[in-house]
Amino acid sequence: MVAPPSPYEVRIRIICTSLCHSDIIFWKLKVPPACFPRILGHEAVGVVESVGENVDEVAEGDVVIPTFLSDCGECADCRSEKSNLCSKFPFRVHPWMPRYDASRFTDLKGEALYHFLFVSSFSEYTVVDITHVVKIDPAIPPNRACLFGCCVSTGVGAACKTANVEAGSTVAIFGLGSIGLAVAKGARLCGAKRIIGVDINPEKFEIGKNFGVTEFINSKDCGNKSLSQVIIEMTEGGADYCFECVGLGSLVQEAYASCRKGWGKTIVVGVDKPGAQLNFSSFDVLHSGKVLTGSLFGGVKAKSDLPVLIKRYMDKELQLDEFVTHEVKFEDINKAFELLIEGKCIRCVIWMDK
Amino acid sequence: MVAPPSPYEVRIRIICTSLCHSDIIFWKLKVPPACFPRILGHEAVGVVESVGENVDEVAEGDVVIPTFLSDCGECADCRSEKSNLCSKFPFRVHPWMPRYDASRFTDLKGEALYHFLFVSSFSEYTVVDITHVVKIDPAIPPNRACLFGCCVSTGVGAACKTANVEAGSTVAIFGLGSIGLAVAKGARLCGAKRIIGVDINPEKFEIGKNFGVTEFINSKDCGNKSLSQVIIEMTEGGADYCFECVGLGSLVQEAYASCRKGWGKTIVVGVDKPGAQLNFSSFDVLHSGKVLTGSLFGGVKAKSDLPVLIKRYMDKELQLDEFVTHEVKFEDINKAFELLIEGKCIRCVIWMDK
Repeated sequence: MVAPPSPYEVRIRIICTSLCHSDIIFWKLKVPPACFPRILGHEAVGVVESVGENVDEVAEGDVVIPTFLSDCGECADCRSEKSNLCSKFPFRVHPWMPRYDASRFTDLKGEALYHFLFVSSFSEYTVVDITHVVKIDPAIPPNRACLFGCCVSTGVGAACKTANVEAGSTVAIFGLGSIGLAVAKGARLCGAKRIIGVDINPEKFEIGKNFGVTEFINSKDCGNKSLSQVIIEMTEGGADYCFECVGLGSLVQEAYASCRKGWGKTIVVGVDKPGAQLNFSSFDVLHSGKVLTGSLFGGVKAKSDLPVLIKRYMDKELQLDEFVTHEVKFEDINKAFELLIEGKCIRCVIWMDK
Repeated sequence: MVAPPSPYEVRIRIICTSLCHSDIIFWKLKVPPACFPRILGHEAVGVVESVGENVDEVAEGDVVIPTFLSDCGECADCRSEKSNLCSKFPFRVHPWMPRYDASRFTDLKGEALYHFLFVSSFSEYTVVDITHVVKIDPAIPPNRACLFGCCVSTGVGAACKTANVEAGSTVAIFGLGSIGLAVAKGARLCGAKRIIGVDINPEKFEIGKNFGVTEFINSKDCGNKSLSQVIIEMTEGGADYCFECVGLGSLVQEAYASCRKGWGKTIVVGVDKPGAQLNFSSFDVLHSGKVLTGSLFGGVKAKSDLPVLIKRYMDKELQLDEFVTHEVKFEDINKAFELLIEGKCIRCVIWMDK
C-alpha cells in the first residue's frame, strides 16, 4: 500500500526508473544506514497522481523527477547560488519521509516498509516531499528523463558546476562507470581538450569514446610506474581536473597526485565505504596549491539547475542515448541488477507499465 | 666572503631583514632539509650592489625585495594567472643557488656556507637569482618593505588571492602569529564582516583587534565542546573561510570541520613538520561540498602581484605599522630570536647599518 500524500507531499506514479550502482551498494549493505525491509531506487521519472495540502508547485498529471537532494528554496543553502545542500532537509540515508519521520509504504500485513533516499522509485507509486520534486517538460522521453535523477546530473554537474572545467583543459576521470562517463560528457560540454579515462576494464575505452573520452589508461597496465606518474608524464605536469568516480580512498589520493600543481582540482564523486579515510601529505596540500573538493549530485540545485541541464538535452547539446544500453519490464528488475553487477550495462531502464 | 653575482644573479646589500618563524623552525631542525653551516633569513629588503651577466631587469642602486619563490616569467606556471609556483626554479629548501647548485658564501677558511630559501638575508650582502628579485619603489620605508618578503604577502595573499574572501563573509583564523594577523588584514581588505581569531594565548585578542580580528576564541577554553563545535555555533553553520596558520594537522582538521558546508573553504597556510599527514573522512569530503587548498606565499606572484600589494600599502589601504613591534641592530640578532621564541614580538626588524 502506498498512502496518500500528507501536507507538502506528492504521490507519483513512476513511469520508469533506472538502476544506479548506489542501489546495489545499499542492497548489499547489511549494516546501518541500510535498513530492512525497504524500497530502493532513486533515479526515476513519473506523473503526479495526487498532491497533499500546501502543494501548489505541481498538480495532478505533471511529469516530474523525484530527486534525492531537497531544494526547499528557503534555507541559507537553497537561497545561495554556492550550495546545493539544503539545510532544512539535509541529505541523509534515512528510512522515513524527510518532514515527518514516517513511511508512506506498508506491506500486506500493514507493516511499514522503509524509504530510500527520499525517492524509493522501485514501486509503481511513491510519495515524495515537494522539496524533492522537479517538474519537467513532458516532451522529454521518460527513459532519458529518469537519468537526471542521479547519474547524468551528478557527472555532468561535477564537471560543469563543481569543477567548472575550463575550455581547452585536460581532464582525468578515474572509473568509467556511468558517473565517470557522465563526467566525460560534462567535460566535453565545457570544451575540455583532452579527456583521459582510467579503468581496469580495457573495454571501457571503446565505450568511453562515445562519451568524449580521448585517451585511455588501464590502471593495471602501468608497469613499474604509479598511475599518477603515468598521467603526469602524459600531461606534462598533471591533469587540470581529476574526478574520482569509484569511491576508493587510495584512488582519490592518486587523483590528487595526478592533478597539476599550481591550479589542479581533484573532485571526489565516488561514494566510499562508511568510515573510509583520505590521507594527504600536509606538505603537498600546502605547497602544491591544488584544490580538493567533493560533489554531491554534481553540485546541481534540483529546482534551478536541473531544468537548465534538461534544456541542454532538449536542445541536443547533451546527448544521452549512449547511457541506456538495456531496458526491462519491472517484473524483470532482477535482470537489471545482474547486468549492472556483471558490468554489462551502463544504464538499464526499468519500465513500470511495459 | 660573498662572491660576485654569476650570470642571472644579483648581489644585494641588505638594508634590513625581519625574523620569521620559519627561520626558527629551520634553526632548530637538525635533520635534512636543514643543513649546516648556512645563512638563514628570507624576509628582507636591500639595494642592488652589482648584477651578473644577462641581468637587465635591475641595476646598481635599485631597491629590491628578494623572494623565496621564483618568478621566471617563462614557464607554464609563471605565464598562467592561476599559479605562483614557478616550475623552472621550483620552491625547495635547497642549500645552493637555484640555477647553479653552488654557494656564493664562503667562511674565513674558504669553505662554502649554505644558502637558505634562495634568500639568506642574515648577511650584509647576499646573492640572489634574478628570478627571485622584485624591484620596488625606494620611497617605501625599509622596515615595512621587508615584511613583503614573507609574512605580509603570505597572509594577505592567502585571504585576498588564494581564498578570494567575499565581502560580508565570516572568516576564522587558527593561530594569531604574524601570518594569522596578516590573514586578518587581508580578510579585512576584502570586506569580511566577522573575523574570528583562535589562539591559546588570551593576549592575542587585544593584539588581534588592531589587525581586524572582531571575535576571539581561546581554544583552551572550549569546555566540553570541540573548537569546531564552538565556531559552528557562533556562525550558525560554520565560517565561510578557515585559515590554518599554525602548521598542525589536527588543527587543519578542526579548521575543515569549522567551515561552512556547501561552500566553506579551508586554506592551509601553516608549515607542518616534514612527513606530517592530514586525514579526512571520505564521506565529509564528498558530502560537504567544502574546499581544501593550500597557499604558499599567499598565492602571490612575485613580479606581478607583489607590486600591486605594495601599492595598496603606499596608498594607505593596507597598514603595516602594527606588525613591527621591535627593531634591533644586526649584532643583536639573538635578541630577535629570543623575542620571537618567547612570543613577545610580532615582527622584529633587524637593521644592518644601525
